[in-house]
Amino acid sequence: MTDKLLNRLSLNQITVDQWTLKEAVEGCLHQDVPWISVWRHKIEEIGLKQSKKLIQDSGLKVSSICRGGMFPAATAKERATKIDDNKRAVEEAAELGTDTLVLVCGQSADRDIDTAREQVAEGIDMLVPFAKDYGVKLAIEPLHPMFAADRSVINTMDQATTIAEKYDSNEVGVIVDVYHVWWDPNLYKEIERAKGRILGFHVSDWKVPMPDMFAGRAMMGEGVIEINRMRKAVEEAGYDGPIEVEIINKLLWERNGDEILSEVKQCFVKHV
Amino acid sequence: MTDKLLNRLSLNQITVDQWTLKEAVEGCLHQDVPWISVWRHKIEEIGLKQSKKLIQDSGLKVSSICRGGMFPAATAKERATKIDDNKRAVEEAAELGTDTLVLVCGQSADRDIDTAREQVAEGIDMLVPFAKDYGVKLAIEPLHPMFAADRSVINTMDQATTIAEKYDSNEVGVIVDVYHVWWDPNLYKEIERAKGRILGFHVSDWKVPMPDMFAGRAMMGEGVIEINRMRKAVEEAGYDGPIEVEIINKLLWERNGDEILSEVKQCFVKHV
Repeated sequence: MTDKLLNRLSLNQITVDQWTLKEAVEGCLHQDVPWISVWRHKIEEIGLKQSKKLIQDSGLKVSSICRGGMFPAATAKERATKIDDNKRAVEEAAELGTDTLVLVCGQSADRDIDTAREQVAEGIDMLVPFAKDYGVKLAIEPLHPMFAADRSVINTMDQATTIAEKYDSNEVGVIVDVYHVWWDPNLYKEIERAKGRILGFHVSDWKVPMPDMFAGRAMMGEGVIEINRMRKAVEEAGYDGPIEVEIINKLLWERNGDEILSEVKQCFVKHV
Repeated sequence: MTDKLLNRLSLNQITVDQWTLKEAVEGCLHQDVPWISVWRHKIEEIGLKQSKKLIQDSGLKVSSICRGGMFPAATAKERATKIDDNKRAVEEAAELGTDTLVLVCGQSADRDIDTAREQVAEGIDMLVPFAKDYGVKLAIEPLHPMFAADRSVINTMDQATTIAEKYDSNEVGVIVDVYHVWWDPNLYKEIERAKGRILGFHVSDWKVPMPDMFAGRAMMGEGVIEINRMRKAVEEAGYDGPIEVEIINKLLWERNGDEILSEVKQCFVKHV
């Protein structure tokens, strides 16, 4: 069981943001981590061509590219620019050999959350045909409601699945990240509803007291989230793909990456 | 219109936590603020009898007592102790002449949020007959989901109203605090649903970036919340009672209370 679960372990690169893509790839190989989720700012550092070669040479599988989205903006011109950027993200996903582009949908900064939510739906609608041509699925990640003002107005599984259901299940789906949705009173009902549309499962933990809203996520097992229960629920809803460890924590960024990855593996086996 | 709205202004005492109850009462009188919401740690400082005399002599109206709740606990004995404490809170509300006891329902710290939620429902059920005898209504305040782990597992209007609906509308109702619920995709539907059960409306704002999860609330107008829209919605749902300004912000606690109250009045007229 343990070995089987480790076959699904994916290092989400932000967990060791101090590593370049090259270092992250080498780290995964060194620790026998079979999957990696690649962030775009890391691709940008060395270029797409070099990133692709690194991944291909390594034999690592890419679980997702993080991230597209950020659709809302004040003007039509700005929104069009954002769609262009999302198209580049789709191309990058295809080039790096993953079919999953994670969407962090964008914020509501202008005292009009309804409009921001409409703009998210419109942005996804504009992106779907392009992504489909590349064989890339759009994976809507609901973010915790505490990020509604600055990162995403899609804050529940219900919202994400409602948008996804307008499309074919190989076009648009959802990400279940334990940190973002663990509090949701409708969580297990919504996971069941998303059956066949779950494109990723992300783990970390929620520690009390929370050291930092954005960069204070905890290692699995250190907090209050029922991670194992949620894993079983997404599995019952048909998801058996990679499980990304995405621990955004600034304390981790100051430590030795190899040490962190070793700790991640232990906690993954024990608490996921 | 402006004057009429100021007749509904209530100073939630935590906004100027540097003030004793006596200072807060004097501050309200000095600034013609007609209502006050009293926190229990302030009552405790001078005793209930002295608190009651202060309030009665001042002629201030008390919009609510903050707070009861905190029901979940590991053992039946601990939960019983919490019920006893809630009974004291009911008595304090009655003594200070308010019919509203705000409930912050309690946390889920033990990786079992479902049980915590059941314990909240049980706790309220045990408290209702006692509160009714005193003519005190239990006002369930949904707290932002970011407080699920340490303050309240009741995180949406839906949850609060679902519990309240088990009782008569003069026994249990809900508080709408803009800071806690502004992000909710079902907000306006839920406010409408809570018609006749809204026992309070609390205002502050959500500023980006958020300086502090617990004590980083902003003055009305400084953030992204559609406060005026929400006020109109609660009014359409029949609520025309006091509006509490509850800005939990540690920077305010370092300032001159009288200055803050003056600023509160200006922002209240302009943005609420």
